[in-house]
Amino acid sequence: MSSHGTFTVLMKLNPIPFNQVTIDDPFWSPKIEVNRTATIAAQHKYLQDTGRINNFLKAGGKMDGAFEGLRFNDSDVYKWLEAASYVLAATPDTELEREVVQVIEAVRVAQQADGYINTCYTLKEPQAKWKNLGMNHEMYCAGHLFEAAAAHYQATGKTSLLDIAKRFADHIDSIFGPGKRLGYCGHEEIELALVKLADVTGDPKYRALAKFFVDARGSRPSPFELEMHQDYKPTNLVDNERMLMKGDAYGGEYVQDHLPVREQSEVVGHAVRAMYLFSAVADLARDDETLIRALDNLWENLTLKRMYVTGGIGPSASNEGFTKDYDLPNDTAYAETCAAIGLVFWSHRMAMLHGDAKYADVMEQALYNGVISGVSQDGQRFFYVNPLDSDGSHHRQGWFLCACCPPNIARLLASLGGYVYARGGSDSGSDGTEPSRAEPFRAEPSRAEPSRAEPSVFVNLYISGTCRTKVGQKEIWITQKTDYPWSGEVELLVHPETAADFALCLRFPGWCGMAELFVNDERTTPQQENGYFILRRTWQPGDKVKLQMQMEPRLVAAHPSVKADVGRIAVCRGPLVYCLEQMDQKAPLPYVSLPVGSEMVAGTMPNVLGGIVVIRAEGQAIPQDEWKDCLYRPGPLKTKPTQLNFISYYIWDNREPGAMAVWIPVAASQG
Amino acid sequence: MSSHGTFTVLMKLNPIPFNQVTIDDPFWSPKIEVNRTATIAAQHKYLQDTGRINNFLKAGGKMDGAFEGLRFNDSDVYKWLEAASYVLAATPDTELEREVVQVIEAVRVAQQADGYINTCYTLKEPQAKWKNLGMNHEMYCAGHLFEAAAAHYQATGKTSLLDIAKRFADHIDSIFGPGKRLGYCGHEEIELALVKLADVTGDPKYRALAKFFVDARGSRPSPFELEMHQDYKPTNLVDNERMLMKGDAYGGEYVQDHLPVREQSEVVGHAVRAMYLFSAVADLARDDETLIRALDNLWENLTLKRMYVTGGIGPSASNEGFTKDYDLPNDTAYAETCAAIGLVFWSHRMAMLHGDAKYADVMEQALYNGVISGVSQDGQRFFYVNPLDSDGSHHRQGWFLCACCPPNIARLLASLGGYVYARGGSDSGSDGTEPSRAEPFRAEPSRAEPSRAEPSVFVNLYISGTCRTKVGQKEIWITQKTDYPWSGEVELLVHPETAADFALCLRFPGWCGMAELFVNDERTTPQQENGYFILRRTWQPGDKVKLQMQMEPRLVAAHPSVKADVGRIAVCRGPLVYCLEQMDQKAPLPYVSLPVGSEMVAGTMPNVLGGIVVIRAEGQAIPQDEWKDCLYRPGPLKTKPTQLNFISYYIWDNREPGAMAVWIPVAASQG
Repeated sequence: MSSHGTFTVLMKLNPIPFNQVTIDDPFWSPKIEVNRTATIAAQHKYLQDTGRINNFLKAGGKMDGAFEGLRFNDSDVYKWLEAASYVLAATPDTELEREVVQVIEAVRVAQQADGYINTCYTLKEPQAKWKNLGMNHEMYCAGHLFEAAAAHYQATGKTSLLDIAKRFADHIDSIFGPGKRLGYCGHEEIELALVKLADVTGDPKYRALAKFFVDARGSRPSPFELEMHQDYKPTNLVDNERMLMKGDAYGGEYVQDHLPVREQSEVVGHAVRAMYLFSAVADLARDDETLIRALDNLWENLTLKRMYVTGGIGPSASNEGFTKDYDLPNDTAYAETCAAIGLVFWSHRMAMLHGDAKYADVMEQALYNGVISGVSQDGQRFFYVNPLDSDGSHHRQGWFLCACCPPNIARLLASLGGYVYARGGSDSGSDGTEPSRAEPFRAEPSRAEPSRAEPSVFVNLYISGTCRTKVGQKEIWITQKTDYPWSGEVELLVHPETAADFALCLRFPGWCGMAELFVNDERTTPQQENGYFILRRTWQPGDKVKLQMQMEPRLVAAHPSVKADVGRIAVCRGPLVYCLEQMDQKAPLPYVSLPVGSEMVAGTMPNVLGGIVVIRAEGQAIPQDEWKDCLYRPGPLKTKPTQLNFISYYIWDNREPGAMAVWIPVAASQG
Repeated sequence: MSSHGTFTVLMKLNPIPFNQVTIDDPFWSPKIEVNRTATIAAQHKYLQDTGRINNFLKAGGKMDGAFEGLRFNDSDVYKWLEAASYVLAATPDTELEREVVQVIEAVRVAQQADGYINTCYTLKEPQAKWKNLGMNHEMYCAGHLFEAAAAHYQATGKTSLLDIAKRFADHIDSIFGPGKRLGYCGHEEIELALVKLADVTGDPKYRALAKFFVDARGSRPSPFELEMHQDYKPTNLVDNERMLMKGDAYGGEYVQDHLPVREQSEVVGHAVRAMYLFSAVADLARDDETLIRALDNLWENLTLKRMYVTGGIGPSASNEGFTKDYDLPNDTAYAETCAAIGLVFWSHRMAMLHGDAKYADVMEQALYNGVISGVSQDGQRFFYVNPLDSDGSHHRQGWFLCACCPPNIARLLASLGGYVYARGGSDSGSDGTEPSRAEPFRAEPSRAEPSRAEPSVFVNLYISGTCRTKVGQKEIWITQKTDYPWSGEVELLVHPETAADFALCLRFPGWCGMAELFVNDERTTPQQENGYFILRRTWQPGDKVKLQMQMEPRLVAAHPSVKADVGRIAVCRGPLVYCLEQMDQKAPLPYVSLPVGSEMVAGTMPNVLGGIVVIRAEGQAIPQDEWKDCLYRPGPLKTKPTQLNFISYYIWDNREPGAMAVWIPVAASQG
């Protein structure tokens, strides 16, 4: 095993990577297949048609013409390459493989002699390189190249893209770093990407550079402020001033440059930037107490005060980001798809860092609601913005001028297997099944909590399929079979090559009030630790575990300080948040309410969204005609019974256009 | 009587002007006295200290130095002159009279040879005169001069300011009008001011110019759009583009220039501008069916879809104005004090135009809530913005860089008498008591509804004091005595010089469920018409009328489409909206709710805000500790009883700083 420099590992869990997990799941497999056949194919066409791939050919002198599109469009190409690589790891696809090779070749020719790649700068403004780190996404694009390269190498074992990435990373490392230039990117991304590059190459300098970028952030004077005063004014420099000032002084909140990262305790600014930064910080936080403390404070602020029930984050369109505690409006919620994806990244890393199920709970919450709401059932239309309430005017689109979300969701779906399982214990850093390219993280035994030093396999998500890993020298297969999230019943088949001692740790989801566990059909009451059921035993090939989680429709209330949700309630079931879509109701949405104590019944309705589990409840509706001619009238409102039919939030806007609401008024009428 | 040109009068009522009404009222007189002694005095000092008066001296060559402040600051001086004039009509005040004379003299010296006055243009940018009508408030300032002049003349009989105003109006009339230049002001004001000038001078050309400005509005290409393309670019022209565009095309909504006025049906843009425009339109709408129809549509849109329960209007800070139907957020409500004052102006004119109490209801609603909330009890601090919900950070200020609101409230309080009474019937245009300077409006007999042709006196507001008017040739005094709005009991003493036939029409407020009437202590059931109790009789000197309006605390609900108020209720009593201030409650405001059917008791609490009527109710509170560590949890919320103490909205933020809420969650817990 290669060395990882001087850091030691406090991280308790290590993910079992995507290429050791197969998914064969009634809920996810159709989405993953649509992602492969429709989304990724369509996106390749968009990348071609919008000139995004041609920009590389032009920068490489293989095609005439000017740069087309927005200056960070290279990143869409890289994200597509990353998504396509994950697909190739799971499913042979000659046509896709050919496209990947072609796109990598385009990237290759665009790389300059010194390793630099950014088609916008090369074609449009070469003299402005590294002169507007604040707003011009130069290192952000580099980061997406590095992520794509790591994925491509892990998925295929080929180094064609990795070699390009290393050359560019070495070039950046020659400019920035301790004793070199103090600078970092306004849009974080390169930090977490450099960690991945360090992991797949085994070269610690990339991790050191990531750490430099994280620790330099919040310098005063800020490099972004200095950029405003430099002689050469590159394009978009005016954006620095617009976004980074706070009154007359430099602020930096938008780009999380308001304070050194170690001193940050509130999630501020652009939500995607924040998530990517915190993900990198979690990667780097092993044995680093002040980083861990900052992460814990930021996590608490986000999840206790600034997160939608859908796992959506960043309520405001004006900064695509955070505002203030408890400011979570529903109809104007920005809740960018990429930000929810970023929360999956961060919460996954927090789950690994702390080995606590509460982080995987949030990962699940975002994944099953605010992330997959971002893509239509046919995989061809996308939400950039994910409101929790709509008057019927909000719809998915095929593509965006700023097209960060579509390829982001594509790469997450294609790599979903990597989020399901983790390993703990003294040998969890690598299971040795496939050397360096198999393991984005490595760990040494946890010293802080010795109980976790025992070999263990963690199940963080309930998704049918199989993972292959090692405990000690023994290969182990774990197969899940479940109809989750529609059912709370999960069967696991544990299959070590020969009898093996380890702990199987099953997440007991925060949403679940009661669960039962059976080992080989015998009911068992296992130990609970940090939100996991811990099944310690000598596992025999073919051992069966059954987890039965009670999954009834339930009402969820928001903190009283969330003004938008006062007097309202959300209906949930399992990990899924539900909503009302107008077409399923008799009464107009603004007029309906749900009485306290109303019975809620889960079931399916033929022809409704492929037979998903819907929830039916006896609601109340205010008679419309009483409000024809007035804006205010004596209260409280009179209501009449009406049936309400809830569908899962993630699947709304897949039928005819209409109003939608997650937070339903609680009926308080005299009926 | 002077002629008023070609128009005939459809207006059913005519106000009895401020100088025929005295106020001696337990609710209003202290406010009016504080307004005179504190507010108007302090404002004179601000006008001096901030250079607003000096700007006139500088423009007149009587002082050296550059223009100071914002370009529309002249208007603050004019509004103060108007307010001071009203005061002088009611209360001899030598010191104030001396200040008024001095300020008028400053205005006089600033007037240029051709009649032009605007100190900003004269001092800063004389070449830019009339070149940025869209954003530079040139005619807006002129309008406030004309209003001040009309008030000063009506109050004092002196023509010193009126002569200045006429010269400037004549100058404007020489430039703009039919066959002259097509142009109008981006901030409406001059239109209603020209009507007042026409009324006090008897010169119809001013009314014709007002009508020209109203009818030219909405021209295409818009003069404001053309300004963006002119060669000379005056200051602030960039604001035209910022505020007036709609995407890539000219829009004009911000300044109500999106459509010809006669075609407008939605209240859009800057709220104060809209109110001043519609006030002028109401002045000009007599016998003009398309203008009346437009006003009726606009009124309906405003009062059924875009008005706060406090009479506040214009929810959005970004345009200081309107957004879309039912968009009435409470904590971010802009609801500028000037906009509520503008609504008083417009609703008063609509009441006169239609003779329907529903317009006076809205006038009262705005006056008793969203207008007088604008000034502190000591008359020295002002709200520019009037939210219906505050976390405790919103407070009144002594003055503003843009100081439109403080003198606006000062002039309204000082002229309040003019809104209380009106006359209807064939001779209502003038009662002959004081010729032209007594009557801002004149009317001929209504032809549309002959029933109103009978002589009548209308009481639109219940305020103790006396009005003096004429029916036929007979002088009549009407004296009110009431503790309104704290009590619903009003005594009226009717005192014609000799027995007189006329109808006394008392507004039956929309908020009131039941009222009883007594004439000379005998209960009577009078006819009701258009929201008025009509008492027709031969009135003898000393006849007594008693009106007893039931005034219980009541709950008010908002239209279900007002998302901010869903599941919430407001407590009202009489014309007053009530609110919770944190200091009067045991539980933190975000945690409290009011159960359906909770008993509400009106009473006084010693030492609370001078003994105003407070409302006490048995409420519920969510235990705070249940929400310490979570953002979402199983609902519905559990609550415990807590006493709630409501105060009148208008008087909040007069004690220690703290949170405030008008719309209270309806308890829907299982307690």
